[in-house]
Amino acid sequence: MNIKQILRVVSVLLIIIAFFMFIPFFVALYYNEKEIFLSFLIPICVIIILGSLTLFITRKNIKNVISTRDGFLLVSLSWISAAFLSSLPFYISGAIPHFVDSFFETMSGYTTTGASILTNIEALPKSILFWRSLTHWLGGMGIVVLTVAIFPLLGIGGLQLIKAEAPGPTIDKITPKITETAKILWFIYLALTISETLLLMAGGMNLYDSFTHTFGTLATGGFSPKNSSVGHYNSAYIDGVVTVFMIMAGTNFILYFKLITRNFGSVFRNTELRVYLGIFLFAMMTITLSNYGSTYKTFGRSIRFAGFQAASILTTTGYTTTNYAQWPMLSQVVLFILMFIGGSSGSTGGGIKVIRIVTLFKQGWNEMKYLIYPRAIFQIKLSGGTVKKEILYAISGFVFLYITLLLFTTFIVATGGNDILTSIATALVTLGNIGPGFGKISPGGNYAFYPDYIKWYLSFIMMAGRLEVYTVLVLFTPKFWKK
Amino acid sequence: MNIKQILRVVSVLLIIIAFFMFIPFFVALYYNEKEIFLSFLIPICVIIILGSLTLFITRKNIKNVISTRDGFLLVSLSWISAAFLSSLPFYISGAIPHFVDSFFETMSGYTTTGASILTNIEALPKSILFWRSLTHWLGGMGIVVLTVAIFPLLGIGGLQLIKAEAPGPTIDKITPKITETAKILWFIYLALTISETLLLMAGGMNLYDSFTHTFGTLATGGFSPKNSSVGHYNSAYIDGVVTVFMIMAGTNFILYFKLITRNFGSVFRNTELRVYLGIFLFAMMTITLSNYGSTYKTFGRSIRFAGFQAASILTTTGYTTTNYAQWPMLSQVVLFILMFIGGSSGSTGGGIKVIRIVTLFKQGWNEMKYLIYPRAIFQIKLSGGTVKKEILYAISGFVFLYITLLLFTTFIVATGGNDILTSIATALVTLGNIGPGFGKISPGGNYAFYPDYIKWYLSFIMMAGRLEVYTVLVLFTPKFWKK
Repeated sequence: MNIKQILRVVSVLLIIIAFFMFIPFFVALYYNEKEIFLSFLIPICVIIILGSLTLFITRKNIKNVISTRDGFLLVSLSWISAAFLSSLPFYISGAIPHFVDSFFETMSGYTTTGASILTNIEALPKSILFWRSLTHWLGGMGIVVLTVAIFPLLGIGGLQLIKAEAPGPTIDKITPKITETAKILWFIYLALTISETLLLMAGGMNLYDSFTHTFGTLATGGFSPKNSSVGHYNSAYIDGVVTVFMIMAGTNFILYFKLITRNFGSVFRNTELRVYLGIFLFAMMTITLSNYGSTYKTFGRSIRFAGFQAASILTTTGYTTTNYAQWPMLSQVVLFILMFIGGSSGSTGGGIKVIRIVTLFKQGWNEMKYLIYPRAIFQIKLSGGTVKKEILYAISGFVFLYITLLLFTTFIVATGGNDILTSIATALVTLGNIGPGFGKISPGGNYAFYPDYIKWYLSFIMMAGRLEVYTVLVLFTPKFWKK
Repeated sequence: MNIKQILRVVSVLLIIIAFFMFIPFFVALYYNEKEIFLSFLIPICVIIILGSLTLFITRKNIKNVISTRDGFLLVSLSWISAAFLSSLPFYISGAIPHFVDSFFETMSGYTTTGASILTNIEALPKSILFWRSLTHWLGGMGIVVLTVAIFPLLGIGGLQLIKAEAPGPTIDKITPKITETAKILWFIYLALTISETLLLMAGGMNLYDSFTHTFGTLATGGFSPKNSSVGHYNSAYIDGVVTVFMIMAGTNFILYFKLITRNFGSVFRNTELRVYLGIFLFAMMTITLSNYGSTYKTFGRSIRFAGFQAASILTTTGYTTTNYAQWPMLSQVVLFILMFIGGSSGSTGGGIKVIRIVTLFKQGWNEMKYLIYPRAIFQIKLSGGTVKKEILYAISGFVFLYITLLLFTTFIVATGGNDILTSIATALVTLGNIGPGFGKISPGGNYAFYPDYIKWYLSFIMMAGRLEVYTVLVLFTPKFWKK
């Protein structure tokens, strides 16, 4: 175990986050929220001093490499310490008086879940809510990826880190150097952020609201500074912009790079993209027809609300424009089923992810062909290429562990005396990083009522979900700790 | 396609079932239910005449072989025609006036689901209820297996048929000849049937009730001639006997053969058996503790009801001794999670089955080891042997298709305007051949309220579940129908 190197990377990461904390500090300055100043300044100063000290002490004999094993530990440690540091402003300011709540809210932010323990969001200072939304934005593309992009600290092993943190079963090496790839991804993310912010402002939203909602959209997070989420604005234009950008955030970011480099064929042939959009359209149309005539009198309104909510749940964002728990049952069940799917690989979306669903579906289909032709060989084709056996094994193992963890989480939530629907929905939307669910955590409800041990446990599950389960669970295998 | 041979086997099977119909006919004679006589005699006569005629016409140039492909078609056709024939007594007698209800009830019987559309069971003639329970008993061990056991019609291909019908991913060839294996399985089944019937009678149950409840137990079916199921007797002794036999019915029958042949080591080393019993004990204890002090004042009563219900749901039987939907939430969630598991391979239980869960869990665990040692080779060990890659592929394909079908069924049920919990529970307990669920189909509720199209669809799903999904779904692949 290369403790020194792990400490160094974590320190750099925390210092980067400390610098990002200046942004909400400036927001506090702008809105003259004097009582909040120290809540940001104290953690910033402490971490910059402690971090620099650590970097200074560990400066000698640095091996610029990191093993696969250390990579997993590093990523988990980074996320836990980042969430700890970032929860301090909520706690110190008294905005969230219980520490477990602050930690839960922050982990929910970084993991882009968007599950909240707040009951009256709008009562909180603007700077605090800005920071809350900013954690989404940082966590969406990945804080370790960000660290690697800014500081090429890790000559070898960087790819391992990105693999451990970036969402999806495979990460295409679009450039030979991993720091280049990380930079390109962050650049695309930044460009989308600016675009959505401008488009929201064009719809009459102010700069503050535009930024915070953009963070929540592009990270597929779901935190809103408004109590009634995006529904607050009651604007078809804003709903439309957010819907489109949610769908874009749930798309593999590598595809944008391919679009920029004019590799259109590769985008068009992408199996995952086609299935992802197909699922979205099917869900949107089913909900539209199911709601039309009962919940919504006009077809236009029906499609607007259906599209928004289908996009929000499929991409694991979790924004709402209405309380879907009052929709016809069929619409609710469609949303419930979407919770089992998730966004695309290489997107900021969570969940099982479309590519895994497609691969396993093709595998299941192949098995039926084997029943008829036991001696033939059937391969799984995706986007024109063949899926290797090892990838298939990894995917099947992943999905099974995911479902096991889902049922285990349902059990843990139920130990708090919660009903079946609330328990399974909580498991689905925390592991899948979605946010709002059904039962007690329907839109309008929140996570405040859960006892502390469930909040701690769910914080862990949100992190496990964001880091693709394996990265976190591997730390619990005895083999990991063997020499 | 060897249509002639398929027709012959189906005819033999229907004639065998017609002969079994004489049993409820004798029950009708005994209880002097004159108005029911014809309801059995008409189908018996029609099928014996038609079946014999078919056998006579197709008697020439018989190839005593059947291809894998024809085997799948044969099994599905056998089940559909058996359910059709066997539903006639219900329909003709007017006991179940709507044909779709009769068909649903019969398919629920053969597939050992135990889901019922009846609202007042005890109002029905005894002979009709006896026939209802007898379909469980026939379907439990498999009607095609039975046919093969009685008539070695199919020199080659018999194993294929058993594979297509018998529950579980693998069927051990305990004897070189498949007809021998089929006979041994049916013999063990018969011995268990006599044992439980005698034990129930020793507890004060009459012969009629003992037989019908034994059928429901050993087939892991769940039909009872009493409105309040096994709870009717309110007897700790009867609950205990049924609990033990449910657990025995959910155990691989091959293990009993090994016990008889004194191969004790092989039974003791059996991974699936140990996990199966472990899951049962864990579920029983959790429910006992969760119910103790609230629902039940004494620990004894708490463990009795918990053990019965955990066994009933895990083995996919579906008997109830109380309305578990009024238990504390944690107990309900434990039962809900058990619905995802099911019995052992080679048992009469349904569901995903313990062996598949164990295999995939080990596979998922291995994948984590590969993350640390990417170049090592980790194998999956079960009961001392190594699981082959092809088996693993088949299992992973199966489980994924199962879950896909589960969510698809949830969607179909929801189109009838049913809530999420009712919809997913209905999907779980029909595909898993369990019977009672949650929501509108909690114990005491029934399936009568579903519209016809959902009853037809669920009949299909019960069959798909009983025939291990692949056997039925393969008929929907274009490859199956290609020359």
